[in-house]
Amino acid sequence: MPEPIVFALEVAAADAPEPAGGWEATVRRVGPDEPIVLGTDLAATRGDGVFETLGVLDGYPQAVDAHFWRLANSAELLELPAPNLEQWRVAMKIAGAALPTDRQGGIKLVLSRGIEGANRPTGWLIATVADDDFSNRTEGWKVVTLDRGYRHDLSEHAPWLLPGAKTLSYAVNMATLREAARRGADNAIYVSSDGYVMEAPQSSVLLRRGNTLVTPKTDIGILPGTTQLSAFALAQQWGFDTEDRLVTVDELRDSDGVWLLSSVKLASPITEVDGHPIAVDREFSDRLNAGLLARRE
Amino acid sequence: MPEPIVFALEVAAADAPEPAGGWEATVRRVGPDEPIVLGTDLAATRGDGVFETLGVLDGYPQAVDAHFWRLANSAELLELPAPNLEQWRVAMKIAGAALPTDRQGGIKLVLSRGIEGANRPTGWLIATVADDDFSNRTEGWKVVTLDRGYRHDLSEHAPWLLPGAKTLSYAVNMATLREAARRGADNAIYVSSDGYVMEAPQSSVLLRRGNTLVTPKTDIGILPGTTQLSAFALAQQWGFDTEDRLVTVDELRDSDGVWLLSSVKLASPITEVDGHPIAVDREFSDRLNAGLLARRE
Repeated sequence: MPEPIVFALEVAAADAPEPAGGWEATVRRVGPDEPIVLGTDLAATRGDGVFETLGVLDGYPQAVDAHFWRLANSAELLELPAPNLEQWRVAMKIAGAALPTDRQGGIKLVLSRGIEGANRPTGWLIATVADDDFSNRTEGWKVVTLDRGYRHDLSEHAPWLLPGAKTLSYAVNMATLREAARRGADNAIYVSSDGYVMEAPQSSVLLRRGNTLVTPKTDIGILPGTTQLSAFALAQQWGFDTEDRLVTVDELRDSDGVWLLSSVKLASPITEVDGHPIAVDREFSDRLNAGLLARRE
Repeated sequence: MPEPIVFALEVAAADAPEPAGGWEATVRRVGPDEPIVLGTDLAATRGDGVFETLGVLDGYPQAVDAHFWRLANSAELLELPAPNLEQWRVAMKIAGAALPTDRQGGIKLVLSRGIEGANRPTGWLIATVADDDFSNRTEGWKVVTLDRGYRHDLSEHAPWLLPGAKTLSYAVNMATLREAARRGADNAIYVSSDGYVMEAPQSSVLLRRGNTLVTPKTDIGILPGTTQLSAFALAQQWGFDTEDRLVTVDELRDSDGVWLLSSVKLASPITEVDGHPIAVDREFSDRLNAGLLARRE
């Protein structure tokens, strides 16, 4: 698999005018072994920043507006200076153009608070060719449910815990994936301490119940899923109803299909929850992945 | 204030023999503007690593064994390769020697999971001269209590949430300090969702009740405090009893003194909790800080 390609960004303020050389002049492709982050950068010492990962199909970054909205929203939740989305858009295009057009891939946007006390954010992008094994889209995944520790109504009263922000502080998400693997599963679904389905460490949860597609509502402290939004838009075109609401663990097991959705892996049908086989809807999986793959923006 | 000084470390395996040039040869002082972290390092993209910050007095790093134990423990909780403590000890001494001996300071040790998939940890150290304003030790701090969202018995059943590990994923800790400032306070004390005192975002909580010093027991998912351990050792020498146990918020307000303890700031007496003045024990504060400042290891 080719090495990821990193692009350093001279992060501009949201209201900064485009420089004489264009935003292109603020983006620099760096060598594979070239460090670009200072040892004192708060991304590296505190996980203090935000990120997004966009899928890239045939050279087209996907769901750009949804990702950019979420990047700006995460920055606001962390009280970071607002990102200059015009600049990030140019940088993203440059990163996307570095990927082979015949492969699926992803672009990660990283926005850090920068050096402590300097009040100057830092940022960079990482373009990656995806592993060609997309068997998750057809074979699906076994998942386990794991406690997220938080009540479902946390975000109403504890914004300092950063519910809904996609921060660089993902050590817990990574540990959760290791726990899932230890239990013989491919992924995990977080459940609130009072029993509601939340999200997976790197993806959103989607259920089908008859003619209705359901996803956990985001005000329970989870991320708004960019691929989930695309899936709902497709499903509405196909005549499905869609609902954002509280979802119980029992509903996971009783559904006509459950999927994890993410930007690069797309839709992964769930075949087992906590060791119990659940209904698998291969037809809808295929239709959904085809629809997601047909997007060009 | 002088700039922090960064030292890059070629991280060795725990069982690696000392190289021919000594461990010294694996430590390199880097320039103030020299990046040392790759854009793909998991410290910078996932907060996926661990750290320690040691206080330095007259050139002597403090509570080294406690910090090294915790570094190794955090690494184990994150399933990182065990750190080579002999190497880190040499690196720490080199970093400490770069600080002026007539100033108080700190050394941060950062151990990252490294590059995704490479299975090779990365690491560095940051030596910093402390701000000379230690008024926190005499004037004290106002604090607010803020919900940590987790029940006090979390660590028994959800180790994947990494209770007790000092990870690089500190975005929430930083957001909590901003919330405290917004409320006109100097710091925050986390309370579990079921009402028990936990810790502060960067320090431990200590209470005096008569002749007994109390700290919240660590099995409620908080860090074992290295300065708290030193404080208990001193207090035992002075004839106090010490207890690790569950502590309620009411007890905070009814104590004969409350302190936040950390490696560089040392003991900060708390003067107010959630806007209510509490008993301040200046005599014990002074004695405790004098005792902590007299340590030479």
